[in-house]
Order: sequence, then C-alpha cells, then structure tokens
Amino acid sequence: MEKVTPKTLPGFLELLPKEQILFNELMDKIRHSYEKFGFLPLDTPILELSEVLLAKAGGETEKQIYRFTKGENDLSLRFDLTVPLAKYVAEYYHDLSFPFRRYQIGKVYRGEKPQKGRFREFYQCDIDVINENELSIATDAEMPSIIYHTFQELGFGDFTIFINNRKILNGLFASLSLDKEATEILRVIDKIDKIGEQTVKKELLTLNIPENKVDKILEFIQIQGTTEEKIEKLKQLNIQNEMFQKGLEELVEVVKYIPLYGVPKENFKIDLKIARGLDYYTGTVYETFLNNYRELGSICSGGRYENLADYYTDKKLCGVGISIGLSRLFYKLNEMGLIEAKKKTTAEVLILPMDDKLDYSLEVGTKLREKGINTEVYLENKKIKAKMKYADRLGIKYTIVIGEEERQEEKVTLKNMETGEQEKLTIEQAIEKIK
Amino acid sequence: MEKVTPKTLPGFLELLPKEQILFNELMDKIRHSYEKFGFLPLDTPILELSEVLLAKAGGETEKQIYRFTKGENDLSLRFDLTVPLAKYVAEYYHDLSFPFRRYQIGKVYRGEKPQKGRFREFYQCDIDVINENELSIATDAEMPSIIYHTFQELGFGDFTIFINNRKILNGLFASLSLDKEATEILRVIDKIDKIGEQTVKKELLTLNIPENKVDKILEFIQIQGTTEEKIEKLKQLNIQNEMFQKGLEELVEVVKYIPLYGVPKENFKIDLKIARGLDYYTGTVYETFLNNYRELGSICSGGRYENLADYYTDKKLCGVGISIGLSRLFYKLNEMGLIEAKKKTTAEVLILPMDDKLDYSLEVGTKLREKGINTEVYLENKKIKAKMKYADRLGIKYTIVIGEEERQEEKVTLKNMETGEQEKLTIEQAIEKIK
Repeated sequence: MEKVTPKTLPGFLELLPKEQILFNELMDKIRHSYEKFGFLPLDTPILELSEVLLAKAGGETEKQIYRFTKGENDLSLRFDLTVPLAKYVAEYYHDLSFPFRRYQIGKVYRGEKPQKGRFREFYQCDIDVINENELSIATDAEMPSIIYHTFQELGFGDFTIFINNRKILNGLFASLSLDKEATEILRVIDKIDKIGEQTVKKELLTLNIPENKVDKILEFIQIQGTTEEKIEKLKQLNIQNEMFQKGLEELVEVVKYIPLYGVPKENFKIDLKIARGLDYYTGTVYETFLNNYRELGSICSGGRYENLADYYTDKKLCGVGISIGLSRLFYKLNEMGLIEAKKKTTAEVLILPMDDKLDYSLEVGTKLREKGINTEVYLENKKIKAKMKYADRLGIKYTIVIGEEERQEEKVTLKNMETGEQEKLTIEQAIEKIK
Repeated sequence: MEKVTPKTLPGFLELLPKEQILFNELMDKIRHSYEKFGFLPLDTPILELSEVLLAKAGGETEKQIYRFTKGENDLSLRFDLTVPLAKYVAEYYHDLSFPFRRYQIGKVYRGEKPQKGRFREFYQCDIDVINENELSIATDAEMPSIIYHTFQELGFGDFTIFINNRKILNGLFASLSLDKEATEILRVIDKIDKIGEQTVKKELLTLNIPENKVDKILEFIQIQGTTEEKIEKLKQLNIQNEMFQKGLEELVEVVKYIPLYGVPKENFKIDLKIARGLDYYTGTVYETFLNNYRELGSICSGGRYENLADYYTDKKLCGVGISIGLSRLFYKLNEMGLIEAKKKTTAEVLILPMDDKLDYSLEVGTKLREKGINTEVYLENKKIKAKMKYADRLGIKYTIVIGEEERQEEKVTLKNMETGEQEKLTIEQAIEKIK
C-alpha cells in the first residue's frame, strides 16, 4: 500500500502525552480560578457564518481568517472568543442574567505566517463581564484580582499587572488638540518597550505631530513613582479635559479596590505607556508581565469596552475582560525550562503480572480503582524485562508486582519506583500506603 | 449602523450557561473515569492536511468533510478522533511507550443534513489502546469495564453492554461459503433492531444469498440464553472454520475477564446480532444501550481493529477502542428529561452589598475565596429589588447580605436561599456554615 506521510500542519501545537498532561493541568488551574469568582462556562462553535463572525472585522484580521464555503454557506473559523461572545449575548439576550459573567477556554484560528512560538491554532482562556448600558468600575478591579489569583495558582514566578486607562491617554491627546491622531499615536506608543523611546519619537514625528507635543506625550507616559505618587502627579497636571478627568477618576477607583480583592501592592502598577493596540478598548486596560522574563511579552491582557455588539444589536452592551493565550505561553515557558512536564501518566499505580495469569491482577486493579486510585494493569504477555522497561518509561511512582507467591498468599508486592523500596503487603495495606 | 443578525449555524450545539455547566460536569466525569484506568490525554489539531486526514476515507465520509484550501494547503476539519490517532501514533512512534493508551475528548465535524439531535459539530470522547503486532485479548475486556465505570458515574440509569466478535460472524459466513458477501451481510444485519427480521431477510435475499443460508444466519444471530448458555451453544454448533473458532476463543476469554474488572453480570451480554458497520473492526465489537431507552441507539460503541495506520506506516498497529458521542447523547437525554440542568452558576455564594459602599463586601469575598469557596460579589449600584432578582435568577444556594449594620459589627447576614433561613454571623462562622 502506498503510504501517506503522517504529518501535522506547521503552526499547530501537538504535544506528547507528558506535555499534554502538564498543559491540561494548567488549563484546569485557569478554569478553577475563573470559577472561583463565579464565572459561567461557555462553549461556542468553532465554525460560524462569515457574515456573523466578520461583521466588524477588517484589514489584517480578515486576511488571517480560515474562510471557505460548504454548500450554500460562507463559513469561517473563529479567530478569537470575543466576537462569538458578542454574538452569543446578542442572540440569547433574553435568556441571560446581567451582569453576564462568562469564561471560555477554547481554540481559535489565525492563518499567520508560522514562526517559532506563533500558532495558527491556539487556546485562548477568556473572561468577560457584560452589562447593559453601564457596568460598575469595581469590575475593572476584579479583573486584576482574577489575573493575580490565576497566576498565583499557575506558579510561573513573580509577575506584575500593569494598569492604565485609555481615557487618560485620549484625554491627554485631546488636550493637545491631537484627537484625530489618537488611534495612530496609541498604536505607536504601544510599541515603546519593543522599539525604544527614540524610535517612538521618530514615528510620532512622521505623523506630523509637533516636537513639543511629542515630548509632552513621551514625558507623560513615562511618569515614575509608586501608584500613589503617579496618581498624585496626574492630578497635579491639572489637565482641563473632561475625558482625562473621567479616566483619572476611574483609575483612582480601580487602584483603590484592587487591594481589597487581596492583590498585594507589589503585584500591580500603573503604567501610562500601556495602550493595547485594539480599537475597541475605551477605559481601563491591562497587561501582565513575568518580572524576570519581560521579553515574553504580556501573558495576560485585556480591558474595558463600551460597545461589544453594536453590529448585532441596538442594545449598548459594555464590558470588561481579560485573555490568556495559553498555547504560546506554554510553548515559551516549556522552551525556557520554566515549566517541566514531570508526570508521564494519569495512573498512580501500574500492576505488573509476572506471568500470563491475569485474574488476580485484574481483581487487585479493580479494588484499587474502587478506592479512588487511578490504576493501570499491564496486560501484555511479555518478558519481565520488557514489563519493567514499560514501567520505567511511564515514570510511575508505584508498581505492584504479582507472581505465583502473591497470588497464593493473596498479597501484593508494592514497589516505590522512586526509592526502590519494596514490600509484600495485603491489598488493604497497599491501598493505605499509596494513599 | 446596519445590523447583522446574530445567529448560530444549524447543527451546531450551543448551550445556555446552566446547560453548559451540566455538559461540562458530564465531560469531567468521562475524563476522570478514563484517567481512573490510566489513559493518557491527547489533543490533536482540529485542522489537518486533507491528504493526511483523508488518506483512507472515501464514499459517504468524504462527502461530509469540511474541506477547503488556504494558501497552498488543502485542509480538512477532522471528522473523527481515530484518524488523527493513527496519524499521531505513526508520526510520534519513537516517542511513545506501547501499549499506548490514550483518551481524547474533542470536537469533530461532519457536514450531514442537519436534523433534530444530529450535529455537524459534536464532541467525541474516545479511548483506544494501541500496540505493535499484537495486543492482549484482556484489553478487549478492559473496554466494557471502562464503559461500565463511566456510565455508573454518569448516572443515566440501567444500561447493558452488548458484546460480539466479528470473527465469529465472518467465520460463520465463510463456513456458508459467503466470504465475498460478508461486508454486505454485516451491513444489513447491523440494522436488524431498526428494520426488523423480515426486512433483513428480504435485503439478504436481494444479495442473492440462498434462503436456507439466510435462515441459518438469522437463526444464528438470534441465539438466546445467558452468557454461559450462548457460549455453550456456539461451541456445540461445531462450525469447522478457523476464523470462527478463533473468534469464539476470543469471546470466551473476554467474557471470562469482564467480571474480574468489577462489571456485574447484568451489565453485559453477548449479542450475536451486533456487527458495527465500520469496515475496520476485526474482532470484538461493543454497543451500549440504556435498558429503558433502547430507541436512543447505542450510546457507546467500539471494537478491535488489526491495522490502524496502514496508510501511514508499515508497522502493524492493532488496537481496541470505544467512543461516546457526547453532544447527541446530551441533547437527547436533556430533551427526554433524563438529565436536568439544575446548577445555574459556578459560584457557591453571592455577596449582595445593600448600598454603594463596596469595600467590606470585597474583603469578605476575598476571605471566602481564600477558604476555597467560589464567590461572586454583586457590584452594580442597583435597587435592592434588582439585586434580589439577580440572585433569584442565578439560583444560588447562599447569599450574603451586607449593609451598614453588618459593616459596623464586622459581620455578615447569611441567607440560605433554599430554606429562606437567615442569620447574622461572623465571617468565620459563615464560612463554616457554607462548607
């Protein structure tokens, strides 16, 4: 038979079992952390009608879409979890309670140029709170607390959540009569960590912004100090712009509430440089960095938006949300050795029958499972050496060896594979020991 | 702004939050049950190269595929989890330990005509054990035990696992000199429960099978009795065909081992009618029915195959596996009222601040979460009636009401929403009570 080469598409993360076990553990931690705050699970289709999914998309996004026709339908694979959320809330509006608090963990698709650590299929882990017309500013403080709780659980080391407010930046630009250039300016200053202050300055000047204003912007976004000092400085600037003052007011509230959510002072900071490229953010914005690995980029970002679903409904649905791009994060941390796939199996015990009489081994396996112990029984009739090699490769903590003697005495030989220690026990004793 | 109607594609299951909570609970139970037997998780891409995914496909399957090109790539959405497993094992052969025991729970895609309870995107929950060249027949007994354990956990009511062996059927056909017609005969008798004995007879006769042989087949597949009696009758038939005898031998072994795995006698039966339409099964086959809802069809099926990946590799990879089609099962059971989405939130407690002073409420929420209690704080500055309505709709068990009095005394008013009982407690007392 002619063979087809079994290969996986480039840009599609496919893991070996031990890595998958670790990946799933991280995903579970995120999920449990989201549920700790009472968020509701959602699971929308991966495939949607293009007219629905791309109602607002355009430019770069649209080029990356996996889009095709099947029968009469023009279909697309979702490229994020936000548009499906907008669709969902507009579609099921009357069945939902507001504020609607949902999380969704799922795969999204972007046909980007594949490069190391960039994926075309990747997991996003999102939470959002949606409400009609208005949403308490305290919700903007809840997001950093969820980020804090989640990354505490994930245990990737020290991290800082950086907070800003788009109204402050837009208000500043307006006060400099740069309203029209605001989006472009945001796009440029968002890159300052990557390209440096001088390049930002150059790029802003090419936007035909007068140098004195460019310098004001650069000075502003680099205001230093503690959270309290920064707030104080912002107040003292006394910028006479309504939007600026509104943004400042919001920021003051947010940093007041965050500690009440149990987030230590050292884990969040105001950073006036943070803009988030995405157009739809209108207030608070977040980025999160590992203190010792800033080069990883933001590992959890998000923000506040005023109108989630205006292309579907007249209702003004505002919200705030955050997202973790888990596939890329996993890949990078694994590559850097910051996480390590240690557990190679979901079993806690492997039972090794020493001969081809399986009956007693199967019974012991059943008893262990009944006591809640994940148990695999090795069933192949191989040489003892092959069985031991399998146990070794599985990296399992306990094996139970069963031969003629154990069968006769209705006992088991329990071996701790880490210490090498082994002893003959009754089944009950073995269960006790394993637990 | 012109609006796009927010709608979901027909044939794509999208649930309300309370249904999603239930769906996820079922999925978790399946996963934990699979892990109880030490299976390894896998998560292959949803999108694959068409040449890889469709290496063996053809006919009906191929017509249903979501297939398209993007750039230079001819791509398809996976239509099951078995072909991706074959690809995976062939691709990563040298990194895996054998027998390779994996489970995968994920979405698959089939562009069928949408009809009630038939989905184009649906979850499959698969386990398979793969080995090179041969695989212990005891593994064929492990599958029913996993089915048993899983459906015990799921709690959908009494069920029976029906077991047969394709070698027995094929051996019978060979002994009647009907080798060439075997596949066609299997396809017809597989439908006997749906179309009845008479229609099966008619269809078999149109295959030009002599009536006396048709009657023999029909008599054979309807052999009655207990497991032991059926085995005895099969032996007494004394059919002189090597394949038949091999199949019988395997069946004898399988039904000997199943009880050792803790499966009660009433939960599994030999059923000689069961053929499973799929070509690739070569030995043991399984179907599972809810005793009181046979009309649902098989809720968990599978079987043994001799050559999983012959279109990718020269290695002979044999295996045995089972699959639960969770989306359809969920939809049907929900429709029939056999399962009910009761839990409407992941939160255990909802904190309701009675005024716009949130500080103390946030602190209480943080303390509850620190003690492992999933807690939501209602943050909107609404009238008390609106807050209570939200709590009601959430269907939450406990609310904590916090007003001026509670703040002054550093206490909380805990209300059991089911009993209506409420009392003022310290935070510690409230935590104790909730736990």
